Amino acid sequence: MEPCFLTAAEAASAIRAGTLTSEALLRSCIARIEARDPVVKAWLYLDKAKAIATARELDKRPPMGPLHGLPIGVKDMIDTADMPTTYNSPVFQDYRPARDAACVAVARYSGAVILGKTDTVEFAAAGRRAATRNPKNPAHTPGGSSSGSGAAVGDRQVQLAFGTQTGGSHIRPASFNGIYGMKPTWGTVSREGAKQYANMLDTIGWYGRSVADLALVGSAFRLHDVGEIGIPSVAGLRVAICRTPFWDQIEPAGAAALEIASKRLEKAGAKLIDLTLPPAFDGMFEAQNTIMMAEGRASFLDVALEFGERLHVDFHDRVNNKLEITPENLLAAYNLAAGCRRAFEALYADFDVVLTPAAPGEAPEGTYNTGNHIFNAMWTLLHVPCLGIPCTTGPTGLPVGVQIVAPRYGDARLLALGEAMAPIIDEETALYAVAA
Amino acid sequence: MEPCFLTAAEAASAIRAGTLTSEALLRSCIARIEARDPVVKAWLYLDKAKAIATARELDKRPPMGPLHGLPIGVKDMIDTADMPTTYNSPVFQDYRPARDAACVAVARYSGAVILGKTDTVEFAAAGRRAATRNPKNPAHTPGGSSSGSGAAVGDRQVQLAFGTQTGGSHIRPASFNGIYGMKPTWGTVSREGAKQYANMLDTIGWYGRSVADLALVGSAFRLHDVGEIGIPSVAGLRVAICRTPFWDQIEPAGAAALEIASKRLEKAGAKLIDLTLPPAFDGMFEAQNTIMMAEGRASFLDVALEFGERLHVDFHDRVNNKLEITPENLLAAYNLAAGCRRAFEALYADFDVVLTPAAPGEAPEGTYNTGNHIFNAMWTLLHVPCLGIPCTTGPTGLPVGVQIVAPRYGDARLLALGEAMAPIIDEETALYAVAA
Repeated sequence: MEPCFLTAAEAASAIRAGTLTSEALLRSCIARIEARDPVVKAWLYLDKAKAIATARELDKRPPMGPLHGLPIGVKDMIDTADMPTTYNSPVFQDYRPARDAACVAVARYSGAVILGKTDTVEFAAAGRRAATRNPKNPAHTPGGSSSGSGAAVGDRQVQLAFGTQTGGSHIRPASFNGIYGMKPTWGTVSREGAKQYANMLDTIGWYGRSVADLALVGSAFRLHDVGEIGIPSVAGLRVAICRTPFWDQIEPAGAAALEIASKRLEKAGAKLIDLTLPPAFDGMFEAQNTIMMAEGRASFLDVALEFGERLHVDFHDRVNNKLEITPENLLAAYNLAAGCRRAFEALYADFDVVLTPAAPGEAPEGTYNTGNHIFNAMWTLLHVPCLGIPCTTGPTGLPVGVQIVAPRYGDARLLALGEAMAPIIDEETALYAVAA
Repeated sequence: MEPCFLTAAEAASAIRAGTLTSEALLRSCIARIEARDPVVKAWLYLDKAKAIATARELDKRPPMGPLHGLPIGVKDMIDTADMPTTYNSPVFQDYRPARDAACVAVARYSGAVILGKTDTVEFAAAGRRAATRNPKNPAHTPGGSSSGSGAAVGDRQVQLAFGTQTGGSHIRPASFNGIYGMKPTWGTVSREGAKQYANMLDTIGWYGRSVADLALVGSAFRLHDVGEIGIPSVAGLRVAICRTPFWDQIEPAGAAALEIASKRLEKAGAKLIDLTLPPAFDGMFEAQNTIMMAEGRASFLDVALEFGERLHVDFHDRVNNKLEITPENLLAAYNLAAGCRRAFEALYADFDVVLTPAAPGEAPEGTYNTGNHIFNAMWTLLHVPCLGIPCTTGPTGLPVGVQIVAPRYGDARLLALGEAMAPIIDEETALYAVAA
């Protein structure tokens, strides 16, 4: 098998065992990119020669950390010291940060090879969309704003990639690309050096092709106790099925994915519990939007002043508070979120994990509409860790996933639960690997 | 009078009226710095020639914004594109960011002249202290971590300067240096490009020599409705005197300042109300520390990996969770803060503004101990806007201020209240200006 088709965890083991070199892995990924990028368009910048040279250096030295020798893609609104960072904005085409974002530095000093920058919605917020196509069907979006990172991992061009989530920009593309995605608890991974949109929401995430891949990155970020929590048995596991207050916006493919995942878990001995959230949660989608838009007012003021009309009107709309959000609206949104955080965690007395949609359904057609974050925004605002797991395919043959959710700072336990649940939920992975 | 002794608001008016040039103002400030910096040591970097050249350019063009022609100092953990940014860390001595922090860009595009970088506690957090001395008595600290910014404004070297507050790093130095300080509501001013310590707390602030100075900067940041709220009368104003749950740590000079400010307001017709906070607030100081230290774990991981033993042990202690903060401790702290935010705002039905200590007393001796943030940490964690007002001098002749506090997003109203209250609280300003 071509090394590019390995998972990150498999490749890391092979490198450690001496049966694979980082250079061979990089060369395989680069060949895959060269073959596929004209269609998928996941990358805004690649430095192939430098990546291979770095891999060669890593092959000569003892392991630097859990990501030793593994290539990683970086969403292009996350700063890199040795590559341009354009935020996919026309006004930042020539920007070269002086320093890596914190997450990039952690990956680099954990042994990763920073392969390149992936396309994104402008500033991971609005304005210009990524040119990236869904690798499973280029007539469809790969989702956004982590468009390129999701597509590159989904298309087996790279094992790992960083994304970000402010609304639903990370877990939704995981679903659309048939891959695994981790959005950790807010605050557990430094967001310094990723373009700021809404500080109360912005969260760094990462993609992989297995839960073990996600755990590997989680250990680099020292998520509490990753690897030290035993993998639970699915037999007897209390799984809360949460259709959320927004179920009226589910599509048949999304509903089917949740049903299929539930049934598979039940068959494996899990105890299913129907979780209806208290009425307060009804307002959480709107609250997330209020906070995102209001915090965006401050986040884009500097670029609005600097670039004037050259900056996309979407950002001026935020700065000028086009939605006329009042301090009272904003305070109500913050207070609702704080109350729901406590309420959500109190519910956990009755179950072990939440299973909930990752997206309404399959990836929409076209590249402008990157999909609806209706099944993600509430979880982002709750600050809880979310793990996206592939599940099935929809009527047009595109992937549809689900996500599992733990309480805040339950990241390590969520990864352990994912290790147990993913092989049951994700029956398609093996099929896809054969097809690829 | 030398232009350096003007307030920012006075200088801005004179520049607008054509009776003062920005160049003359800059030259006066630079002469003051040259005379005083050998003792005060407020600056880590100055580009005098460039500042004068920028001022000359500004003198030729129509006003760019509310800060047109005014020099501003920048705490050296806030990025500047045209000056080094060392974070006062031995490992960042050669660092030159590619881009201005958002607050610097907003100031620049509002017409300010970025004069230089001011000394700070390392990363505004721990490790190395600023070399800055208190301009009123060089045997004492100017406070920290915004040491150089506070001292430079206090010493009449510059009218305005940026600081930051995560615990009490902004309002406490305002008190120690006899100046005005604004810490706006969390999230109203972008913190992008200021070194991250604790995202739930880090707040950009600014210093000036009058409330009008602070309002000028507030208008550049478009704090809601600045300038549109009428200045209230102090007669009949309901002022809540809040000794806080930490009153046992007040020093005689701090107690005297609160007493003097209260009596002056009462004499002017204000109605004083004694505000005893509910028992939940007792835990807010510890909660702030828990959140700061726990979020610091993620914030310093990249530099810990990159610089290893070259990085000060204080930051490794945070990364390695030396305090052994558990997820449960951290969640309890977040939840307590959320509850107290709501509770604090509900109390406002009974009064118009809170008056509370800005620091325990006078600035301590030496430069290592930058003073205690016991009277600041709770307000930072509450996310509320705080305005520091000079009030009196203590037994060793050093300044002691107070602060007024409004509900979240009450920034514009707080500035209007400050305009009314400051001339009554701050009887010393005129005396100092004569002495200087």
